[in-house]
Amino acid sequence: MKTEMNIGLLGLGVVATGVVEMLAIQKHKIEKQTGVTLNLSKVLVLDKAEKQALAAEHGFELVTELKEITEDPTIDIVIELIGRISPAKDYILAALRHKKHVVTANKDLIAQHGEELIQVAKDHHVGFYYEASVAGGIPILRSLATSYMADHITSIQGIVNGTTNYMLTKMVEEKMDYATALAKAQALGFAESDPTNDVDGIDAAYKMIILGAFAFGKSLTINDLSIEGIRRLDLADIFSAQSLGYEVKLVGEVKQTSAGISASVGPVLLPKEHPLATVKNENNGVYIESRGIGKSMLYGPGAGALPTATSVLADLIEIAKQSQGAQLYPPFNELKEELPLAPKETIVNHYYLSVHLAETMASQDKVNAYLDDQKQAIAFSKIEETDRLILLLKTVTEEQLQEQLSFVAQFGEVQSVLRIMGEIDEN
Amino acid sequence: MKTEMNIGLLGLGVVATGVVEMLAIQKHKIEKQTGVTLNLSKVLVLDKAEKQALAAEHGFELVTELKEITEDPTIDIVIELIGRISPAKDYILAALRHKKHVVTANKDLIAQHGEELIQVAKDHHVGFYYEASVAGGIPILRSLATSYMADHITSIQGIVNGTTNYMLTKMVEEKMDYATALAKAQALGFAESDPTNDVDGIDAAYKMIILGAFAFGKSLTINDLSIEGIRRLDLADIFSAQSLGYEVKLVGEVKQTSAGISASVGPVLLPKEHPLATVKNENNGVYIESRGIGKSMLYGPGAGALPTATSVLADLIEIAKQSQGAQLYPPFNELKEELPLAPKETIVNHYYLSVHLAETMASQDKVNAYLDDQKQAIAFSKIEETDRLILLLKTVTEEQLQEQLSFVAQFGEVQSVLRIMGEIDEN
Repeated sequence: MKTEMNIGLLGLGVVATGVVEMLAIQKHKIEKQTGVTLNLSKVLVLDKAEKQALAAEHGFELVTELKEITEDPTIDIVIELIGRISPAKDYILAALRHKKHVVTANKDLIAQHGEELIQVAKDHHVGFYYEASVAGGIPILRSLATSYMADHITSIQGIVNGTTNYMLTKMVEEKMDYATALAKAQALGFAESDPTNDVDGIDAAYKMIILGAFAFGKSLTINDLSIEGIRRLDLADIFSAQSLGYEVKLVGEVKQTSAGISASVGPVLLPKEHPLATVKNENNGVYIESRGIGKSMLYGPGAGALPTATSVLADLIEIAKQSQGAQLYPPFNELKEELPLAPKETIVNHYYLSVHLAETMASQDKVNAYLDDQKQAIAFSKIEETDRLILLLKTVTEEQLQEQLSFVAQFGEVQSVLRIMGEIDEN
Repeated sequence: MKTEMNIGLLGLGVVATGVVEMLAIQKHKIEKQTGVTLNLSKVLVLDKAEKQALAAEHGFELVTELKEITEDPTIDIVIELIGRISPAKDYILAALRHKKHVVTANKDLIAQHGEELIQVAKDHHVGFYYEASVAGGIPILRSLATSYMADHITSIQGIVNGTTNYMLTKMVEEKMDYATALAKAQALGFAESDPTNDVDGIDAAYKMIILGAFAFGKSLTINDLSIEGIRRLDLADIFSAQSLGYEVKLVGEVKQTSAGISASVGPVLLPKEHPLATVKNENNGVYIESRGIGKSMLYGPGAGALPTATSVLADLIEIAKQSQGAQLYPPFNELKEELPLAPKETIVNHYYLSVHLAETMASQDKVNAYLDDQKQAIAFSKIEETDRLILLLKTVTEEQLQEQLSFVAQFGEVQSVLRIMGEIDEN
């Protein structure tokens, strides 16, 4: 039963500085709630010189060697905020093996090496929490691990990448093209100089892997997901989708079908009434369908220093609380199920297709014959600006989609194939 | 360290039947997660005859005397789902005094007698949880008690009454008047035959009292809130508000100002971009502003058998989990702060006013003189259909509002005074 716990912090970037600030603001509240005083005692940095002022202000020691933290017996908790896999993974392993509780915001690491780290934490009877790794300030992982544990989730959909959601919002609201929106996101610090992980859906995929583990107890690897980014998105399609009642968003989904778990990240058409369709700018939203609650959503900032720092603090509070009781430190996510991946051929989706018609007038009859012939698959069609054919396909398998694509390829170039999430209104 | 816990259920209405169903569905998952098998052993009903089939199907015993549950040493947990204050309060007190953990969905009871019950639970070292008492299936109380504990909340706003939100949605989307919308809500079972508590904002006020305790640690009583319902809402005002970019919703708010805590329930104008403005039909939403996370929202069904039952199950899981550790059963809400109520004269708001002009043409000059004279308080004005004056007042105290009302009373009858939540766009 500790009344004081000392913290070693790895890294002192934007989020870590947020943790320093939030800890200072919330120290008394945490003390009062948990009976534990949390002291930030050491911070690992590369260069002590530039952080002296912050260290003096908050009374922590700057160190440049990991072992000054991991081998310090007075330190109880290590917060890892340096990011990436190496050396973060080794640092966390060292901390866990020295029986330090660990808190991290490192989604890449949890998504790729989570199971190994969780096992090491378990072996050493310490807590290992990572609320901040998904959707920044939104308390989604703890909600899944507690409240939603009472429920049976059937699907979880998320706008979990703030950079691309910001870009898509700008593209729609200010008719900005992809390159301008990306430049603006970079200027505001939302997108990194190499935006690959964001715009190609990799970042969202890592987060969906973590969400899938909490929602279904399923261990997914990145190869289990079908992943598409927003690079090839055309502004014309976004506006066509809008005129049909949809918003285009980069959405990750993990769902349970009768054939198993299916997981994807990609730009999709969401009906405007879908709660995720209202999530704008750099915000994130996680939408859950379940047998008990039905349809629910958690919404908030997906990134940023203070929101992410608040999630780190929530994990610290969990550790402080557990230290007052039986010191059980159960795994953050206790759900584990043996669920198969749904075979690709069992997955059906609705799709939005746009086709640039080659010979507008000449091909009209052929197009009409096709539309008539395939009307079972085609929920809606229209021709925009005389040479853009827009089609909504209903409940088709991947194979049926390919078949339709080969049909329409006769009429011109297929510009976009986008999944529709939710129902198609055929009127 | 128990591996089996027996449950006594008080009441077998709609929500209680949902609990019976969800427990059957989730039994194995709960067992696996918590190591505890939850058995529903007895259910208290008024009349055994009509529930025999359900009892036989699920293998529980029907009883008609409370003591058959409270005095049964094999029963560990009592779930109260009979509602209202009496006899629910006495039943819960009896259960707690017999050292049974208690789970309830009874918002009236928690809002009015929560402190007393919480103290009795504490004295007897048992758990007392009531997630289902606010916003049905939305896991808001547990999120506030855990994740948001790391944050400093500055305001909490909620659409927490599904009945009135359903009615307002119908009024807007189908141009239904108040009476027709109410009849429709009653026909669908959302509103009770006596809808007073819903339409007059009392139900929402009780929920805001509970939210205020979790968000600020402040004990509010119903008299601390300014409460207004939707009975007097005029369809014309709803549409005028819409044309100005607002949705009209019944919103409860508890916020911290420099002068203290201020709490209210009333129909307000929400800017269409406000996350709560998108909450439709019988759904609920709780929107939180805080120093760390910033702006976040939890959204979902505010009522219904299965959603509410799922929240009850989440409480059961909490009890089962705690029984495996140090059996601490801390109060559900541990936050307690000595905060004053903000004096009424310190509270400033923006307002929407509509006035039916008495003598359209004759008074025009007087109206213009007033608008010109008071332009500091008036953010926007327009005259609709020649005889409806619409005003938006900016940052006025209650006293200043009354002053403006006495001015405009010269020109005709004031039809509506509605608070605006959020900023006024003066363009």
